[in-house]
Amino acid sequence: MKLHRFIGDWTLGEEMAIRVAEAEVISQVKNVLRLGRGDQLILADGGGQEALVTITDFGRGYFDTRVEEYRWAKAEGEAETTLYCAVLKKENFELVVQKATELGVKKIVPIITERTVKLGLRFDRLAKIAREASEQSGRGVVPTISEPVEFSSAVANLSVGTKTVILEENGQEFSASIFSEAKSRAIFVGPEGGWTEAEIDQAKAKGLSLAKVCNFTLRAETAAIVASFLLGQSYEN
Amino acid sequence: MKLHRFIGDWTLGEEMAIRVAEAEVISQVKNVLRLGRGDQLILADGGGQEALVTITDFGRGYFDTRVEEYRWAKAEGEAETTLYCAVLKKENFELVVQKATELGVKKIVPIITERTVKLGLRFDRLAKIAREASEQSGRGVVPTISEPVEFSSAVANLSVGTKTVILEENGQEFSASIFSEAKSRAIFVGPEGGWTEAEIDQAKAKGLSLAKVCNFTLRAETAAIVASFLLGQSYEN
Repeated sequence: MKLHRFIGDWTLGEEMAIRVAEAEVISQVKNVLRLGRGDQLILADGGGQEALVTITDFGRGYFDTRVEEYRWAKAEGEAETTLYCAVLKKENFELVVQKATELGVKKIVPIITERTVKLGLRFDRLAKIAREASEQSGRGVVPTISEPVEFSSAVANLSVGTKTVILEENGQEFSASIFSEAKSRAIFVGPEGGWTEAEIDQAKAKGLSLAKVCNFTLRAETAAIVASFLLGQSYEN
Repeated sequence: MKLHRFIGDWTLGEEMAIRVAEAEVISQVKNVLRLGRGDQLILADGGGQEALVTITDFGRGYFDTRVEEYRWAKAEGEAETTLYCAVLKKENFELVVQKATELGVKKIVPIITERTVKLGLRFDRLAKIAREASEQSGRGVVPTISEPVEFSSAVANLSVGTKTVILEENGQEFSASIFSEAKSRAIFVGPEGGWTEAEIDQAKAKGLSLAKVCNFTLRAETAAIVASFLLGQSYEN
């Protein structure tokens, strides 16, 4: 049986007993998972540390646990990875955040492009989706989701050491060699309507790589999921 | 402006005028896209041929078009690709069918595994999703979706020439070399609960490769989307 993981504000590493008072976790443990005294779960601090704990007691508005073992969550890949994704329809962007989290992306930046139609993401909801996807996928670290940024300023502010790819139907076929040995990687995914010529020119002027990942036209959210996978791969060989 | 594509039962290749009488297409053209005389669209036969047509006239229950040009849809990859995916919750399996279609998978086989919980896919809906995703992605060919098959008989019936990968968390890291030069490829994606030991043993006995595509635990539908991407890639250098 797989143990359930919860990511929260716990201070891990010292105490041999941890009291859990987060209403959402308590409700999940009691009402959904129906765990009781003696059952085990994992508490993670979102910074990479985890504790395997056993429930010892339930109180009003809390439960107590005994720490069996401290350990580190599954290692994150070494590379810094950022997915720049055009703001999409709410449910599509939520899907992207969930999948990017599972696939190990470290930073998600919603971007506003010339053809971006939708705005108004709910950041509280996105943060919750990222936390839950981290819990489920065994990630120790929750990706950061930044405020939306204009495409042009995102491109302008890219650091020199970041190997950056713009997904574009007319680009070259994506090649693993683009990311090999890059310690910092980013992929830009455009909106349904695609990039404008001006945006492509801007990317070229900055020296970014234009690449496609499929011969067919992908929906933006599909491209973003594939991009998340490509960001997370190891390209050593 | 990108032209809209419709896949239907048209006989393409000879006539210079095509009458469209499919109620769904007519409704889409008139009510959703609001096209009129002189507007262009693409009719595709689902077998790889397309016609660029101009609307010439609307009648009761049909519209007429003039063929401007016959052409072939974007070429499909050469390899035969099959995604064997455990039957999932309805909306997740639908997502898989949509994304697998966009990413160029040619055949989707729902499989029943020991830990498959959900059954009862709606095949008419899945076929519609595959057709619409093909239309949108510019694919000339709609993937086939077969009836659900038991895992053990799917494995038993694999043809010798098919290079097959079972996605499994404890497998080796997926390597592009697995599929290079394979003209027929398949990937198996298990249910949320994972494969049983007996299933893994069966796969090993058949000589299939066990591979993982991520260090974290992926949801089944995420694994299936990544698998679809990997199936469709060209692995020549």
